[in-house]
Amino acid sequence: MDFAFDAKTEQLRERLLEFMDSHVYPAEPVFRDQLEARENPWASVPVVEDLKTEARKRGLWNFFLPGELGAGLTNLQYAPLAEITGRSPALAPVALNCSAPDTGNMEVLAMFGTEQQRKQWLQPLLDGEIRSAFAMTEPDVASSDARNIATRIERDGGDYVINGRKWFISGAMSPDCRIFIVMGKTDPDAEPHRQQSMVLVPRDTPGVHVKRGMHVFGYTDGDHGGHAEVIFEDVRVPAENLIGEEGGGFAIAQARLGPGRIHHCMRLLGMAERAIELMCRRAVSREAFGKPLARQGVIQEWIAESRVTVESLRLLVLKTAWLMDTVGNQGAHTEIQAIKIATPAAVEKILDRAIQVHGAGGVSQDFPLAELWAAARMLRLADGPDEVHKRSLARRELKRYL
Amino acid sequence: MDFAFDAKTEQLRERLLEFMDSHVYPAEPVFRDQLEARENPWASVPVVEDLKTEARKRGLWNFFLPGELGAGLTNLQYAPLAEITGRSPALAPVALNCSAPDTGNMEVLAMFGTEQQRKQWLQPLLDGEIRSAFAMTEPDVASSDARNIATRIERDGGDYVINGRKWFISGAMSPDCRIFIVMGKTDPDAEPHRQQSMVLVPRDTPGVHVKRGMHVFGYTDGDHGGHAEVIFEDVRVPAENLIGEEGGGFAIAQARLGPGRIHHCMRLLGMAERAIELMCRRAVSREAFGKPLARQGVIQEWIAESRVTVESLRLLVLKTAWLMDTVGNQGAHTEIQAIKIATPAAVEKILDRAIQVHGAGGVSQDFPLAELWAAARMLRLADGPDEVHKRSLARRELKRYL
Amino acid sequence: MDFAFDAKTEQLRERLLEFMDSHVYPAEPVFRDQLEARENPWASVPVVEDLKTEARKRGLWNFFLPGELGAGLTNLQYAPLAEITGRSPALAPVALNCSAPDTGNMEVLAMFGTEQQRKQWLQPLLDGEIRSAFAMTEPDVASSDARNIATRIERDGGDYVINGRKWFISGAMSPDCRIFIVMGKTDPDAEPHRQQSMVLVPRDTPGVHVKRGMHVFGYTDGDHGGHAEVIFEDVRVPAENLIGEEGGGFAIAQARLGPGRIHHCMRLLGMAERAIELMCRRAVSREAFGKPLARQGVIQEWIAESRVTVESLRLLVLKTAWLMDTVGNQGAHTEIQAIKIATPAAVEKILDRAIQVHGAGGVSQDFPLAELWAAARMLRLADGPDEVHKRSLARRELKRYL
Amino acid sequence: MDFAFDAKTEQLRERLLEFMDSHVYPAEPVFRDQLEARENPWASVPVVEDLKTEARKRGLWNFFLPGELGAGLTNLQYAPLAEITGRSPALAPVALNCSAPDTGNMEVLAMFGTEQQRKQWLQPLLDGEIRSAFAMTEPDVASSDARNIATRIERDGGDYVINGRKWFISGAMSPDCRIFIVMGKTDPDAEPHRQQSMVLVPRDTPGVHVKRGMHVFGYTDGDHGGHAEVIFEDVRVPAENLIGEEGGGFAIAQARLGPGRIHHCMRLLGMAERAIELMCRRAVSREAFGKPLARQGVIQEWIAESRVTVESLRLLVLKTAWLMDTVGNQGAHTEIQAIKIATPAAVEKILDRAIQVHGAGGVSQDFPLAELWAAARMLRLADGPDEVHKRSLARRELKRYL
Repeated sequence: MDFAFDAKTEQLRERLLEFMDSHVYPAEPVFRDQLEARENPWASVPVVEDLKTEARKRGLWNFFLPGELGAGLTNLQYAPLAEITGRSPALAPVALNCSAPDTGNMEVLAMFGTEQQRKQWLQPLLDGEIRSAFAMTEPDVASSDARNIATRIERDGGDYVINGRKWFISGAMSPDCRIFIVMGKTDPDAEPHRQQSMVLVPRDTPGVHVKRGMHVFGYTDGDHGGHAEVIFEDVRVPAENLIGEEGGGFAIAQARLGPGRIHHCMRLLGMAERAIELMCRRAVSREAFGKPLARQGVIQEWIAESRVTVESLRLLVLKTAWLMDTVGNQGAHTEIQAIKIATPAAVEKILDRAIQVHGAGGVSQDFPLAELWAAARMLRLADGPDEVHKRSLARRELKRYL
Repeated sequence: MDFAFDAKTEQLRERLLEFMDSHVYPAEPVFRDQLEARENPWASVPVVEDLKTEARKRGLWNFFLPGELGAGLTNLQYAPLAEITGRSPALAPVALNCSAPDTGNMEVLAMFGTEQQRKQWLQPLLDGEIRSAFAMTEPDVASSDARNIATRIERDGGDYVINGRKWFISGAMSPDCRIFIVMGKTDPDAEPHRQQSMVLVPRDTPGVHVKRGMHVFGYTDGDHGGHAEVIFEDVRVPAENLIGEEGGGFAIAQARLGPGRIHHCMRLLGMAERAIELMCRRAVSREAFGKPLARQGVIQEWIAESRVTVESLRLLVLKTAWLMDTVGNQGAHTEIQAIKIATPAAVEKILDRAIQVHGAGGVSQDFPLAELWAAARMLRLADGPDEVHKRSLARRELKRYL
Repeated sequence: MDFAFDAKTEQLRERLLEFMDSHVYPAEPVFRDQLEARENPWASVPVVEDLKTEARKRGLWNFFLPGELGAGLTNLQYAPLAEITGRSPALAPVALNCSAPDTGNMEVLAMFGTEQQRKQWLQPLLDGEIRSAFAMTEPDVASSDARNIATRIERDGGDYVINGRKWFISGAMSPDCRIFIVMGKTDPDAEPHRQQSMVLVPRDTPGVHVKRGMHVFGYTDGDHGGHAEVIFEDVRVPAENLIGEEGGGFAIAQARLGPGRIHHCMRLLGMAERAIELMCRRAVSREAFGKPLARQGVIQEWIAESRVTVESLRLLVLKTAWLMDTVGNQGAHTEIQAIKIATPAAVEKILDRAIQVHGAGGVSQDFPLAELWAAARMLRLADGPDEVHKRSLARRELKRYL
Repeated sequence: MDFAFDAKTEQLRERLLEFMDSHVYPAEPVFRDQLEARENPWASVPVVEDLKTEARKRGLWNFFLPGELGAGLTNLQYAPLAEITGRSPALAPVALNCSAPDTGNMEVLAMFGTEQQRKQWLQPLLDGEIRSAFAMTEPDVASSDARNIATRIERDGGDYVINGRKWFISGAMSPDCRIFIVMGKTDPDAEPHRQQSMVLVPRDTPGVHVKRGMHVFGYTDGDHGGHAEVIFEDVRVPAENLIGEEGGGFAIAQARLGPGRIHHCMRLLGMAERAIELMCRRAVSREAFGKPLARQGVIQEWIAESRVTVESLRLLVLKTAWLMDTVGNQGAHTEIQAIKIATPAAVEKILDRAIQVHGAGGVSQDFPLAELWAAARMLRLADGPDEVHKRSLARRELKRYL
C-alpha cells in the first residue's frame, strides 16, 4: 500500500497546475464577459477555443481516454488531474477536451464504434472540433431504471426510425453539438436488459426537434450547451448508425456510466477545494462583531469538517480508480456506487457553507459558489438519484448474509 | 390555552382559500407565460394587476397592516392568512398587497412618516399603485450588524446628500418601484446605535444608479423586481425626506425587522405545505422498481419528517405572533429570532426532499420547487445570517446564569 | 388562539415549582446515597416515600388521571406539570404518583376494570402503596406490531392459563411491583385485532418467573424497578382477572398508549430544560483556551438550537394535549405520533451536546446527563421505534392524494 | 499509489482472522459468564489469560510496537490488524497485548525510558504480566489543553513529591495495574510547554488513593480495569522515576497521543464492521409488517451509508498510518486530527443505527452494540473533545491564507 502519486502523475499535475495558474484562472473573468456579450445564449465563446489550443499545444489533452486514442493514462493517473480541472469546472475540463458528456460518448465510440463511426464522429470529438450529446433520460419515466426507457427505435428496411421524448440532454443546446447517441427500445419483447439499443443521430436529421433548455436552479448552463428537451419524431437514420449490436444498449450504458461517475466525483473534489479556498479567503478578510470571521468557532468548525470530508472522499475516489484499473469496472461496482452516493452530497454541503460565509454575495453571480452548488446538487440526481444507488449497494451488502 | 383560530380568522381563511382556488392557482401558468413574453425582464405583467383588482374587490387587501390604515388584523390573525399566500408566493402576496419589501416600508411610513410622507408615498403603496424598496444591505460590510453601514447621508443646508453603494435591494429593478428608503450614516461620531438615519429617495432623483440585478442561485427574481445593486452618487433630497429623527435609523430598522421576519416565516410554512403536497402527489403517481414511490420507506420517512417539522414550527410562529400582539415586538424578541433561525433551514430541507422525489424535473422550471428552494435558502442569509441570530439568542440564554 | 396557561395551571405550576425547589432537588443527592447503600439493588429507598408523603400532603398527587379518581386535570393542564417533573425524572414523577408504567396501568383499570379489580388493584396504586407492570413486549417478535404477540392466554374452565416470555417489563424487578397486566393471545384464529386479551396476574402467582433485569446502555434502572425479563409458565389466574372483554386487548393497548406517549414527551421536555440549564451553567463556569466555554461560538450554537427545538416541540406537545381534550385520543392520532417521532430524538441530541460540554464528567455518574440520555434514547424504541411511527404517519398523509 | 496490502500484512491478517474465528469469538460468551461470576468487579478473568497464551504462542503479540522490542511492523502494517481486533474489542486487543493504555505506556518507556525503567516496567508489560495506567486527565480543568494540568510534582532532595487529583484513569481499577505514568507540573514558572513532567509511580506507593471507578453511560468498564479517580497525596518517588527530562512532559504526551489516536480509530473501524454485520444479520432474520427488515428502504439506506462511511474512513486511517511511517507523526498531524474528528462520530452513528435495528434488545446486555456505542461516544471526548481538534485543524488550514 502506497499513497504517493507515481512520477508521471506528479509531473502532469505540475504541468496542469501551471496551466491553471497561467491560463485558466485568468480566463475566468474573460469568459464571464464573453458569455454576457454573446448573442446566441447557447454558443461557445472565443476564450474557450483559445484555452483548448493552448492546452493541446502543451500536451494537456484527452487525459480521460485510456489507450492509444487518448493520453494513455490509467484511471488512477487521471483522477488527480481531473480533480484539478474541477477547480474551474466551466473552463478547465473543456480546455483539456475532458468534459462531459463528450468524454463518455468518446469512450462509447472508442469501445463499440465501427471504423466508419469512429472516423466520422470520434475523430472530430477527439480533436475538439465538435460536441456531442447522450440522449437517455426521459421525462415520463424513472430513467434511473434503464428498463423504463420508452423511446422506440424501430427497424424499417435499411433504416432505424426513432420516436420519443428526452430531456436533460446535456450539451445539446449548443450549436457545436452535432451528434446524439440515442438510447431507445428496439425490442420491447426481449428480456428486460436486451430491449434497448443505441444509435447515432446527427443533430440535423429531419424530425429532431431541440425544443428548449431545461433549467437547473435558475441556471441554463448555457456556457456548456445547456440541458435540452429533445423530441424525436419519425427520425430516420441508416442501420449503420447502430452502435454495437441490437439489444446491447443497456450494456453499453453500464459501460459508459462507471467512468462517467468517477470523473464527476473527481471534479467535485476540485470544486470542494475551490470552495474551501474561497471560504478561508473570505474568513480571513471579513470582519463581523469585532473580529475576523476566521476566528468565529462555527466557521472554524465548517472549515475543519470540510477538510476532513475532502481528504477521506478523495481517497475513496482514488481507490475506486485503482480498482477500475486493476479489477475492472465491474469489480469496482460497489466503490463506484459508494463515491456516487457520498461525493455530491458532501460537496454540496461544503459549498453551502462556503456560500453562507460569503453572505448575500455567496448566492449571487459575483462568486462561483452558487453555480457550483447547483452543479453538485444536480449530481445527486444525475446518473440515478442517491436513493437508487443506496438501495442497490445495501442489497449487495445484505446478500452476504442470506 | 387554546389552539383554535378565532371566528374572524376562520372566516378570512375560508375566503382566502376560495380565492386561491378560483383565481391564484389558475393564474400561475398564465403568469409564467406572460413573464416569458414580456420585453422588459423586470416589468410587472397584466395577470398580477388582475389579481390585485379581484382581491381588493373581495376585501382581501392589506392584511399585514394592523390598525385603521390596514385591515385591522392582529399578527395572530394575519399569520395563518400569510401562510396561505406562501403556497403561491410569487402571486398571492402581491395580489393581496402583502408582499415584501412594500409591507415593511408601509409599516415604517405608517409608524414614523410625516403627514406629507404618508400622503405622498404611503397612500399609493396602500393602494397598490407603486412599489418601493428598502436600501440597507451593502456589499462591502457585514450588514447583519447595522452599525457597519458605510453609506453617508450628510446634511447640506436644507438637503441631505447621499453617497454609498447598496446591493440586494429587493424590488428595485422594477420600473414600478418609485421610492427607496435609504439607510445611512448621518453622524459617524455619535454612539453606535445613533449614527444612522433613514431618508426617502425617489427613484428618479439624479445620482441614483440602479446598476444591475443580483442573482440568487441563477434566478433574477425578475417577477418581483429583482435584487438590485444601487449606487448613490451625490444624491440630494430635501431634509423633509428624513424619516423620524436624525439618529433614529437603527431603531426604525429594528421596528421594521420583527414583523418582516415573521411574515417571511409564515409564508415559508405555506411554501413547505405546497412542497409536501407536490411530494405526495408525485409519490403516488410515479413508479420505480415496480412500485409507486409512495411505498418506498425512505420517501415515507421524508414525508413524515416534513409533516412533523411543519406542525411544530407553525405553532412557534403562531405563538410568536401572539406574543407580538400581547407583549410587543420587544417582548417577542427571542421567539422572533427562534423562528428566523428554524424556519428557513427547515423549509429548505423539505423543499430539497420534494425536489429529490421529482427527479431531474425537480430542479427545473417545470416545477416551482427549485425556485422556492432558492427563496428559502436566501432567507438563511437575508435579515442576518442564521449564525448571527443563534449567537445572539444563546447569549441571552446564557445571561440567566451569569 | 391563546398561548397562556389557565389560572388553575399557573397556580399548580407555582406550587409544583416550589416543591421541586424545596424538596425534590435537595433529595437528589440523598437519593443517590441511599441507592448506593441499599442491599437489594431493585428496592425502593426511604427518601422516595418521604417525597410521596409530602407531595400528597400538598395536593400534588395523581395529576395524570382525569376525572374523579384522579386530580381532575385535562391533558392540557397536566402537560406543563408533567414537564416540570421531567426535570428530576427519577424522583418527581414517582413523588407525585405520576410515574410510568403505573400511570398507564391505573388508566386501564379506571377505564376497563371491574369494580372488584378497581378495589383490589387500582386503589392501592392510586394511594401509591404498590407498583405495577405492563407485560407486552416480547423478545422474539417485533412487538411494535401488537398482532405479533406470541404469549398464549388460554381459557381452561374458570381459569386462564398463560405461557410466554416477555422482556423490558419496566418496574417489574421492584419488590413493590405486585401486579402485572399481561397481554397475550386468547384466540389466534380471530381477525388480527381481536386475537389479544389482557389479564391481571399477581406477581406471586406460581409460574411467574422474574428472571433478570435488562440493561439500557449499562444502566439497570434499578432505581425505578428495572426492566425485567419475565417467563410465564403455566400461570393460572381466575377468569375474573380478564380486563374488559376477550379479544379486547389490542383496543385497550391502543387506549393506553396515547396518554403514555404524551406523558413521556412532556417529561422529556423537562429533561431537555434540565440539560440546557446544566449546559449553560457549565459553559459560564469553565474555561478553555483562555475564555469561558460560554464564549465559544460552537457552544453558543448548541445552546441556541437547543432552545429553539424545545420551544417548538413544547407547543406541539401542548397542542396534542389540547386535541386529546377536545377531539379525543383518536382525533389526536397524527399529533401523538408526531411528538413521539420528534421529541425523543431531539432531546437525545440536546443531552448529547450537554454531555459534550461537560467533558468526561458528562458521561459519568457525577452528572445526571448520561443517564437521562439513555432514557431518551430508549424512548426512540419504546412504544414502537421511530421508523414505525414515521411510516404510519406518512401513509396517512399520502392517503389524501390517492 | 497502490491500495493493496503487502504480503506480510496479508499473511498476518489471515493468521489473525483465523485466531478470531477459532478462539476469540468463541471466548466471548465465556468471558461474559466469567465476568458475571467473579468476586472482584475489577479483576481479570481466566479466559483472557488463556487467549494471551494462545496468541503469544502463535506469534500474534505486541503488533503495535515498531522496532526490535515489538513485532517490527510499520503503522501501515499494523492498522488492518488493529482493525480486526476492534471487532471484539474487549478480548482481541488484550489477547494480543495491544490494548490501551498499556500500548501508549510501553511506547513511552521504549522511547524515553532509562535502561532501569525499561527493565523494571517495560519488560513485564511487553510480556503481558502486568497492566499500567496513564494519569493525565483532571476533573477540575479542561485537560484537552495540557497546559492546564494542575497536579504538582515537586523535587525534594532525591525524590519527587506528587499532589493532585486525576480521573478517568483507564485501567487503574484493575489489581493487575501496577504502575502509573503521572503527568504533573514540575515548574509552573517555565514557558507553557515546558512546565510539565512525567514520573513513574508504582501503584502501591503510599499516598496513592484509587478512589472509585467512573462510569461511562452506566458501564464501569470493569472488564478492562475501569476508569479510576485517583488522589495523589504527598506521594514520594525517587528522582530516578522521572521519564525523560524535567519539563519534557508535554512533548512526551504529544509523542504518545499520535499513535494512541490512530490505534483507537483502527479499532473503531472494526467495531463498525461488527455493527454492520450484526445489523445485516438482524435485518435478514427479523420480520415486521409482513416482510424482513432487510427489505425496508430506511434500513437499506442505513446499511448503505454505513458501508460508504467505513470504506472512506478506513482509507483515511491507512493513509495516516502511511504518513506516520514516511514523514513522521509530526508530518501526519493534520491527518491524525482528521481521523480523530471523523471516526468516533461516524462509528457512533453506525452503532446507533445497528441498535435501532435490534429494537429493545439493541440497548441491552444481550448484544454488544450498546457497550460498543458507549466506547465510541467516549472517544468523542477522550484525548481531547472533537471541538478542540476541529478548531486546531481549521486554524492550520486558515494559516495558508494569512
